[in-house]
Formats: sequence, structure tokens, C-alpha cells
Amino acid sequence: MNEMVYGRNSFDEALRSGRVRKAYLLKDSSYISLCKKKHIPFEICERKTLDQMSDHKNHQGVIAETEAYELYPLEALLKEENGLIVALDSLKDPQNLGTIVRTVDVVGADGIIYKKHNSVKVNATVAKVASGALEYVKIAEVVNLTAALKKLKEKGYWIVGAAGEAKQSYDSVDYKRNIVLVIGAEGEGISRLVKEECDYLVSIPNNGHIDSLNASVAAGVMLYQVLKDRQQG
Amino acid sequence: MNEMVYGRNSFDEALRSGRVRKAYLLKDSSYISLCKKKHIPFEICERKTLDQMSDHKNHQGVIAETEAYELYPLEALLKEENGLIVALDSLKDPQNLGTIVRTVDVVGADGIIYKKHNSVKVNATVAKVASGALEYVKIAEVVNLTAALKKLKEKGYWIVGAAGEAKQSYDSVDYKRNIVLVIGAEGEGISRLVKEECDYLVSIPNNGHIDSLNASVAAGVMLYQVLKDRQQG
Repeated sequence: MNEMVYGRNSFDEALRSGRVRKAYLLKDSSYISLCKKKHIPFEICERKTLDQMSDHKNHQGVIAETEAYELYPLEALLKEENGLIVALDSLKDPQNLGTIVRTVDVVGADGIIYKKHNSVKVNATVAKVASGALEYVKIAEVVNLTAALKKLKEKGYWIVGAAGEAKQSYDSVDYKRNIVLVIGAEGEGISRLVKEECDYLVSIPNNGHIDSLNASVAAGVMLYQVLKDRQQG
Repeated sequence: MNEMVYGRNSFDEALRSGRVRKAYLLKDSSYISLCKKKHIPFEICERKTLDQMSDHKNHQGVIAETEAYELYPLEALLKEENGLIVALDSLKDPQNLGTIVRTVDVVGADGIIYKKHNSVKVNATVAKVASGALEYVKIAEVVNLTAALKKLKEKGYWIVGAAGEAKQSYDSVDYKRNIVLVIGAEGEGISRLVKEECDYLVSIPNNGHIDSLNASVAAGVMLYQVLKDRQQG
């Protein structure tokens, strides 16, 4: 199934990865000559048509129909050593998913696992927020996250869950091995069953008044800790 | 001027800080008894009234009119030692500002400076995304960010700007002194004039395909680096 992407960043990245099947552009768009050059079919539209097509106003005058985003089997994310996977336990907010996809690309991690049900999934908002990173990050949808974590443990991965109440600090774990970082749902955190699969539950220091960091910020802070730990290797 | 806040987290925090002047609730709201107990005036509304009042659908059945969010003079953010201020150079996205407010509270930094013009400002979306942290984080609006940074330097602050192209890594700076972290606009980064005020320009390692981290994730990663550096004494 084809997928629509909105905005210049997402369009540029879809272009680079050769996924644009058709472009929808304003009549004075700077992308027209580019599409001609690359032999990509395009249609000139009124702004209000683009507004309608995008359901929101953030298309920046360019919409592309692209080949559907490909999901991967869990196995495609595995590595022999220094593997790094982010597992999301019932994340709800497309802003957070998109931002995490972006961070996973930038840190060079191997991909993201999320639950097929009861979670936010890859969609146009996620693609837009990810600023093109969706083209590069492998995502696996799994029916049962605890089963997926069990399988990853069998394959030699250590499971590290972010939990505000945990005594152990996120920077006291040895990340120089295959790691799955588990990030929980906004507000609720990691579910009990998933926690039971974690080898470590860790927290990020909180000196403030409110409960926790935003989920995508927590993921970013932890992923960069993994990078630092491995560099110091 | 009074300000409306939306959603349970923001309402709870406004309650805790005694800023709620009036509540707008659904007729079966669990907040009714709480408002009675705290002698806070409330009005029972239809859901569609709350939808209209909030301009968006994320009110979770509760809206509060609160005392306007207070801005602070720059001087109120200063500390004698181990000061930590985040300066935002023309940030545009309320999601990012709200998320940074939340992180600034959690790390226990001293506040945020942003430009009065040509930047996103504190508003209801920012308050909602900040999940209540806006009650605790000091924000100073300045007309001229370079002038403010000059002043902070005179007061003994070191200015560290995040710039993707910088050679120096974010984790090679000595943060055990008064620090201002400067985060630039989404996509554009820090402006030339502001860069000229920076004592250090640093980058966060990028192993990926896309240009940069989301601004609020970059802020989070850098703020936790400051914390770690200071802990290590």
C-alpha cells in the first residue's frame, strides 16, 4: 500500500531513497524541475487541495505518494555484537515515536520494536516528525513484546528498562554488549510483564518537581549513554 | 492576564501551585469534589464547550483558568556557582519548547532564556507539553539574545552552543562552572551573531543519515552531560 508523506524534509528523504512514486506540488514549486529531471510524475495542485490531502497544514507545499514504509521481521534487527535496539512498550504519541525514530538513526542504533496493538504506529505524522529518518530505521512490529524480549535474550541481548522508580542509575550499566533499551508508555511507564523480562531497571536522575522526562528525551539520554560507554570501551 | 491550561497533568500542577482561579469540568468529573474541597470556583460544561475552549481535543475533560504564567528578569536566573541556563535562539515549535521546559525542571537547571520576537513563546500548548513543569521553571524573555549572552559572560557564565558542524564534542567541555547552553532553531541552528558569543561550539555525535537530533532531544542529551560532569566532581 502506498503512503503519503508531507513536507520538504520527508519529501527530500523519500527522493534520496528512491521511494517517491508521485509528487503533488504548488504551481510555483521549486520541486517541479527536480521531478522533471528525475522523471518523477507530478501533479500541480491548489494549496487547498494539498491542505485536504494532508489533513493538516504542515505540508509546506509538497506532498509525495511513496512506496509504503517497510516493516522488518525482528531477526533483521539482530547483530552479533554491540547490537542496540529500542523497544517501545505501548507508546501512544506519534510525536514521541517520530522523535525516537530520528534519534535511533542519528545514534546509529539497529532499529525499533513496538507492539502491533495498543501502540502508536508508523504514520504520516511519525514520518514528518522523524524528518526523513524513517527511510533508514528498521522497525519491527511484534504481537507480543514479552515474547520478543525473551527471544532477544536467547540471542544474547541484555534488556534494560527505563523506570522512574528504579534505584539503579542509567549510567551504571555496562552497555558494551548487545542491548535492548525498553521505553514505556507516556505517563504509565513499562508494564509489569515487560518489567519482569528486564535484566536491569534503571532511572535517569530527577532533581525536579515533576515525575519524569518526556519519553523521547529519556530515550535520547539513554542512547547517548550507550554510545559514550562503548566509546570508552 | 489569565491563562487557560488544558488536561489533567497541567491542571494538577496548577492546583498544587495554587494558580487555579476557575475550573471548567464535565458533569461527572472526579475533580468536582476536589474543587469543592479547595474552594475553587468551577463550571460544569458540555464536552463540546471544552473542545471549543481548548481549540484542540486534548483537554481530557478539564480546563482551568489560571493566573498568568510569570516571566522573570534575566537576573532571577543567575547563580554564583554551577549555574545552568538554557538559551533558545529562535526556536519555533511549541512541542520542543514544552519538552525543554520539562527537561529543565527534571535536571534542576535554573531556567530558560528566549527571544521575545521571532520565537515560540509560553502558551497553552507549551504548558500542556511541559506536563506541569512550567509552574517551576523560570523563563526570561529578552529582546536581544546576543546582548543577554554578553551580560551573562560578564557575570561569569560560559556560553556553549550546540552546532552540528562543530568539531568539538559536547562531552569534552568542562561544565563545572556557570554554563549557558544555547540551542538553535529547528533546521537552522544557532544564528551567526549568537555563535560569535559562544565560548564553545560543540556537536553531538551523529552516526546516522539525517542531519541532526530534534532540538529538545539535543537539549536533553547536553543537560544530562552537564549533570554527569558535575557529579564526577
